[in-house]
Amino acid sequence: MPDTLLTGPVEIIGVGLLGASLGLALRRQGVEVLLTDVNPDHLRTASGLGAGRPRTADDLPELVVVAVPPTYLGETIRRALDETDAVVTDVGSVKMAPLKAVADHIDVARYVGSHPMAGTERSGPLSATADLFEGRPWAVAPHVGSDPEAILLVEALARLVGAVPKRFDPEDHDEAVARISHLPHLMAAVVAGGLVDAPDRHVELSGPGVRDVTRVAGGSAELYSQILTNNPEPLIEFLTRARRDLAHVIDALRGGDIGAIQQILAAGNDGVGRIPAKHGGPARTLAELWVTVQDRQGELARLFADAAELGVNIEDVRIDHEPERPVGSVHIWVEESSAEAVLEALNGSGWPAHR
Amino acid sequence: MPDTLLTGPVEIIGVGLLGASLGLALRRQGVEVLLTDVNPDHLRTASGLGAGRPRTADDLPELVVVAVPPTYLGETIRRALDETDAVVTDVGSVKMAPLKAVADHIDVARYVGSHPMAGTERSGPLSATADLFEGRPWAVAPHVGSDPEAILLVEALARLVGAVPKRFDPEDHDEAVARISHLPHLMAAVVAGGLVDAPDRHVELSGPGVRDVTRVAGGSAELYSQILTNNPEPLIEFLTRARRDLAHVIDALRGGDIGAIQQILAAGNDGVGRIPAKHGGPARTLAELWVTVQDRQGELARLFADAAELGVNIEDVRIDHEPERPVGSVHIWVEESSAEAVLEALNGSGWPAHR
Repeated sequence: MPDTLLTGPVEIIGVGLLGASLGLALRRQGVEVLLTDVNPDHLRTASGLGAGRPRTADDLPELVVVAVPPTYLGETIRRALDETDAVVTDVGSVKMAPLKAVADHIDVARYVGSHPMAGTERSGPLSATADLFEGRPWAVAPHVGSDPEAILLVEALARLVGAVPKRFDPEDHDEAVARISHLPHLMAAVVAGGLVDAPDRHVELSGPGVRDVTRVAGGSAELYSQILTNNPEPLIEFLTRARRDLAHVIDALRGGDIGAIQQILAAGNDGVGRIPAKHGGPARTLAELWVTVQDRQGELARLFADAAELGVNIEDVRIDHEPERPVGSVHIWVEESSAEAVLEALNGSGWPAHR
Repeated sequence: MPDTLLTGPVEIIGVGLLGASLGLALRRQGVEVLLTDVNPDHLRTASGLGAGRPRTADDLPELVVVAVPPTYLGETIRRALDETDAVVTDVGSVKMAPLKAVADHIDVARYVGSHPMAGTERSGPLSATADLFEGRPWAVAPHVGSDPEAILLVEALARLVGAVPKRFDPEDHDEAVARISHLPHLMAAVVAGGLVDAPDRHVELSGPGVRDVTRVAGGSAELYSQILTNNPEPLIEFLTRARRDLAHVIDALRGGDIGAIQQILAAGNDGVGRIPAKHGGPARTLAELWVTVQDRQGELARLFADAAELGVNIEDVRIDHEPERPVGSVHIWVEESSAEAVLEALNGSGWPAHR
């Protein structure tokens, strides 16, 4: 076991995707994991996958991780504080709602909320993977009364499963996720919802743009409705701001004010530029190249093999199938500074590529 | 030359990305192409690339394609009708604005507006490629007075360069693009614009969701401000509807009405389901799989080679780098019906994959 504050056992309450993945990741590090779930099928599945063993009455966890749906967070954290002497954390998407629910608990010092920024669109223990937290930010959001040792233990948990702990004030955390996750989700849902009554001939013109904008709106309505209603204040603020911005756009369109529209779009350019590159470093400029491929399946493998051989560092990929044709184009993103050289290399290797 | 109504020569006015690409595509089919541009550098570049030759006073085009920026469309189409006996089309993103500008022209019967749904985020003739229109929808939007022969000639142009012509009423076309392109673009710009004054620690938590939602907002503010202000009526209608929907969300959040939020998100699910699969066929259900890769560059080539060998049909790809780590995950989309088999095959070949 690596050098860590956390020696275990760790109890995980709720073995859905997040809970079971955490169990797998901890077991891989040799930590004893105790599992609890109201659903006996989930408990059996998670144990069977090797995420830990069902907790018994005699077990004394060092740390309890509450990984239940948002609606049940508060009561489950309270019960964990009541029934154990362990440090208690949760992995919910918002941090003020559970904190409010336990703030008056006599042992609230043992509670430190947290939020791993890991994929949660899939659900259930069958989707679990030990790699889920690998390299992801994990927000650790202590309250003013959190025990310093408890905070360090939760940070140790994040590190032990490969995540990168980042400390947040709970209120600030909720503002951050409202901004970079909940607002984009709702805007995507509104755009997608507008397609429900659209004629077929309209949606048939859909291109990569609307596909990108609406993709997150395909996520579970049940899960996200719980998340969003648990973060009302900052979300209402950002939604109000978005409505004001849209009113400004409508005014500019009514007045034919192209300068105002251009200003709004330029702010959008600036905002996109602020989103960090995927490596987590400072934002970098990527160039999008289009490569035409004639026969997708075999061609993709060949394209990537050639790119690797040419030393091309592909930062992202998108496959763009062509309607009614077996031909397609693959979009690749490379560092802007190397774009021209990459284009030349690909063209030289017989790949029709352009910007 | 293939069997086609279009024999040429074709004059292309404006040799940016679209115009020069069209020239290259037509030249590849053996059609004579005459180029015109107010910018002598662009004209020289496009000719040099093989997109056609500069037009002289003696040339008599069969078809004139106007590919100038939105602001200059109307006047350029008028001049083309004045100065030639050719059929005239344009490739602008909206169709009512140019039509209004030429509706009173005595020879308006020779005008048939059109709009190839091809990538236009890059600009300039140097970005041109003969493959730009390959397999793309190309909206052909005749007005009630358009000469039937002229309509057929523009449809022949679309087919000749590999596109799939789809006939639209001009007003209906503009409603369609407002819905599936202009509204999503503005919503993305508003979300992105909201990041401009966000603290670094907030944008550092950005994940794939906000990246997807905002990507189109990185497009040229100058070009899109022209496009959007040329399509005010339907866009104002959809923006007003979006504001109303957002007001509804705010009310539901204020009232803690989780059922209302869930309904809005479920409509979003339905809307996403209406967007056609990339092959242009009916919408299909794709499953997203995550594959963990340890060393990106070589691994990608190996993953795609293995996938091809296993007969896995990858519908789309996304590379998700991990912040502060050399490890990453690759998301692949496959047909839902084959997802379990693909997972098993990938895991069997040593790729840690999960849903």
